[in-house]
Amino acid sequence: MYEHLTTIRVRYAETDQMGIVYYGNYAQYFEVGRAESIRNLGFTYKKMEEIGIKMPVVNMEVKFIRSAMYDDLITVKTILKEVPTDHSITFFSEVYNEMNKLLTTGVVTLYFLDASTGKKIGLPDALKNVLQPFFSED
Amino acid sequence: MYEHLTTIRVRYAETDQMGIVYYGNYAQYFEVGRAESIRNLGFTYKKMEEIGIKMPVVNMEVKFIRSAMYDDLITVKTILKEVPTDHSITFFSEVYNEMNKLLTTGVVTLYFLDASTGKKIGLPDALKNVLQPFFSED
Amino acid sequence: MYEHLTTIRVRYAETDQMGIVYYGNYAQYFEVGRAESIRNLGFTYKKMEEIGIKMPVVNMEVKFIRSAMYDDLITVKTILKEVPTDHSITFFSEVYNEMNKLLTTGVVTLYFLDASTGKKIGLPDALKNVLQPFFSED
Amino acid sequence: MYEHLTTIRVRYAETDQMGIVYYGNYAQYFEVGRAESIRNLGFTYKKMEEIGIKMPVVNMEVKFIRSAMYDDLITVKTILKEVPTDHSITFFSEVYNEMNKLLTTGVVTLYFLDASTGKKIGLPDALKNVLQPFFSED
Repeated sequence: MYEHLTTIRVRYAETDQMGIVYYGNYAQYFEVGRAESIRNLGFTYKKMEEIGIKMPVVNMEVKFIRSAMYDDLITVKTILKEVPTDHSITFFSEVYNEMNKLLTTGVVTLYFLDASTGKKIGLPDALKNVLQPFFSED
Repeated sequence: MYEHLTTIRVRYAETDQMGIVYYGNYAQYFEVGRAESIRNLGFTYKKMEEIGIKMPVVNMEVKFIRSAMYDDLITVKTILKEVPTDHSITFFSEVYNEMNKLLTTGVVTLYFLDASTGKKIGLPDALKNVLQPFFSED
Repeated sequence: MYEHLTTIRVRYAETDQMGIVYYGNYAQYFEVGRAESIRNLGFTYKKMEEIGIKMPVVNMEVKFIRSAMYDDLITVKTILKEVPTDHSITFFSEVYNEMNKLLTTGVVTLYFLDASTGKKIGLPDALKNVLQPFFSED
Repeated sequence: MYEHLTTIRVRYAETDQMGIVYYGNYAQYFEVGRAESIRNLGFTYKKMEEIGIKMPVVNMEVKFIRSAMYDDLITVKTILKEVPTDHSITFFSEVYNEMNKLLTTGVVTLYFLDASTGKKIGLPDALKNVLQPFFSED
């Protein structure tokens, strides 16, 4: 398993007139969590695109448990439970507030696509190499 | 069952550098679909808040099948499969492009809350009255 | 002079916890106004990009006079005061609510760029041809 | 004069299909810059609202010089040139990329309003007290 924590300060723009973060904006928090978790491995999603791989989202499930509020310093925990074995990767996200209360959980699945052909491909070596150490048996 | 169709023109702001609509923005399309489906019943979500009811989202599931593109005139089909029997309501959404291809499906569940107490309440009469005719047996 | 009106329903997502439309979201309303004003001429911004022209924004000025609120059906008036004579085009926008009160004014200037070279170019013929009739002397 | 620097990582959500940050999203970067510059004084915009003061934006001017790109670690410099002497405050913003190139400049003016009456008020003491030291003559 590979886990990574990143913090985000909630912007005024992200709130709505209910006085809480608009439900659609958590997708951005999950995105930031994914990007920072990959950066922490010594790779970046930006480089992924530069080597010709696109990663569109194909599925998202979100549970909204408590509300995030303006100016909250939230923590996004991003979890990879296994090394992808096919053309998709699934990130589990948990969003916590400063009192360590769980606000939201998310499960987001993305495909690996060859940007030039648009076809599905397996886990790119560049990502596999940095992920493998976290999942080796011994 | 109650179904309603509404159309939305995809904005440039809603695209990302992959050249497609950013995955987080479908939550807004679903929101527009819900709001217009309620308006079509002769009620509005705005009035719901004015009579003291808040409806936070508690769950969302989205499948991304095909991409929506800039300037697409998408159709959001919003479906209520049953009259709510407790403190929650579930909207099913389907997003189609101009070739009538299914792009995205969404399932969004919201709670009915008393805005002054924050407590869950049952289906408000104002909504029940306009919904009932679509679900009567005969 | 060329003027065009388009209407937009304010989304919940576009409000903030002050209970009004977040100031940054007017840029999207201006964008919709520009796109629809060009579509009304029988051309589209989408086609502009397809024939190899990009139009990045280089300047924006916004005055916020009154607030737009959730569910308001706002009208965006988009005005072209003159046919561009160089590599830039300036759109004047006025946003009104349903009581015809002026909410916001915007002035947005964009460049015409050749997408392949990134260099500034003059007013594209495709746009000039549809604009000219509105500015002819007699 | 009071200046403050804060950094922001550009999100994928903030890009558009031109491959650059959508022009409307800079308003959010300016907002983050303002919020962090106030936090750095030992106060917060959140507390401002808690003591009954709202600060709606009344004017914004933005010059777009170079594009910010996905994953750029941009720096927002937020500048207060003078202590407000009436019911408004003006923040000057400059956005730089990692090569220290100036991307964007912004000038945003906000009003101080009494949240309960909606009337304009002068500079709140809570903000004046923390700002004054930066503007004293000697």
